[in-house]
Amino acid sequence: MDQNEAKLLAARAAIDELPPRGIIGLGSGSTAKLFVDEVGARVAAGADYRGVPTSKGTRAQAEALGIPLLPDEDGWGEIAVTVDGADEVDEHLNLIKGGGGALTREKIVNDASRRNVIIVDETKIKRRLGETWAVPVEVLRFGFSHARDALGKLGKVRVRAREGEAFVTDAGNFIVDVTTGPIEDPLALDRAMRDIPGVVETGLFVSRASLVIVAGRTGITRLEPKKK
Amino acid sequence: MDQNEAKLLAARAAIDELPPRGIIGLGSGSTAKLFVDEVGARVAAGADYRGVPTSKGTRAQAEALGIPLLPDEDGWGEIAVTVDGADEVDEHLNLIKGGGGALTREKIVNDASRRNVIIVDETKIKRRLGETWAVPVEVLRFGFSHARDALGKLGKVRVRAREGEAFVTDAGNFIVDVTTGPIEDPLALDRAMRDIPGVVETGLFVSRASLVIVAGRTGITRLEPKKK
Repeated sequence: MDQNEAKLLAARAAIDELPPRGIIGLGSGSTAKLFVDEVGARVAAGADYRGVPTSKGTRAQAEALGIPLLPDEDGWGEIAVTVDGADEVDEHLNLIKGGGGALTREKIVNDASRRNVIIVDETKIKRRLGETWAVPVEVLRFGFSHARDALGKLGKVRVRAREGEAFVTDAGNFIVDVTTGPIEDPLALDRAMRDIPGVVETGLFVSRASLVIVAGRTGITRLEPKKK
Repeated sequence: MDQNEAKLLAARAAIDELPPRGIIGLGSGSTAKLFVDEVGARVAAGADYRGVPTSKGTRAQAEALGIPLLPDEDGWGEIAVTVDGADEVDEHLNLIKGGGGALTREKIVNDASRRNVIIVDETKIKRRLGETWAVPVEVLRFGFSHARDALGKLGKVRVRAREGEAFVTDAGNFIVDVTTGPIEDPLALDRAMRDIPGVVETGLFVSRASLVIVAGRTGITRLEPKKK
């Protein structure tokens, strides 16, 4: 099984986590995209779901599939389940997200959801976060160089670019990717980053996964956070 | 002496806190506006200042006065002194700011400044923050109702409006004013608010004043934070 097949296996397994009907959060990124395709197939077959997309890209995909969607600003009520991907998952099921730049919307939808199901292929599982990924941080344009330099005290910073231009988020902000190496205390790092004025949100998702579905050569593994 | 005379007295006293030349932060609001007028008079008389404005409004005012300004996004280096107003000042010199809606830019410029001088008339001095003011919180539009409801667990919330429409910040976001009553622990409240995804920044300025200049019936009082 290659990585794409693993992603598809995880996406299909997440369908079983959905309620029979209701409001669901739709993640962003390559694995979540496969999940949204599956939801589209269920809706086409008559299932009654309304989606809250975590990016403009996912909204466009879901609209094309005919999934009824809620507006971006309000009226969500409580989202029953959100299914989203991740770039890294540590042994406590903390996550790095935001490889696609949608981290802020993803964290807002995560926060508004009763359950959060994360779908990944097995290459994403690490002992600690930061082993291979940088932490994406969304930063306001105003005073950008000040916030970027302050983030530079927490790791090696790189302003995300796309086709030679600064990458711009759905909210019109920039992304700084902060390479930290293995992260001992993700909550403390998340806080230190968010303490910098101008930082909107970070890609560190601490204690935000209800269930992680991992797909790999031996099939599906379901990881749940240890009770505290 | 009325309140406007007190504001002018404080604004003029702040001029003495400026270096002879260099980069200075220009606050927003009615008292800071008087200070910016004073800076304009110094520049007209030949003083070599470059300003970093904390709002579009202050930028327009400073431009009209002929004060050279730095761009919004970068190139500030270290700001020598920022002079700004406040809506409330507590006995530890913590502040509530953001009555004018510029709290996020004000906090970024504050953070980038070596010294921060706060100018107020004596009506702003309280034992604890929250005695008369609500805490303004800047919130992203995406998922707005979720963040507003989460803030509602920390106080009574009111979405700021202007002329019947939602007030929109310089960054395109909304403001929620959170009425809390007297605040026991401003740092903990600031953190609880910023822990809500979608919250960009709060108007709680904890340990961010180097000097508070208070003008009242008996003249000028200078308050400095106690050494820890």
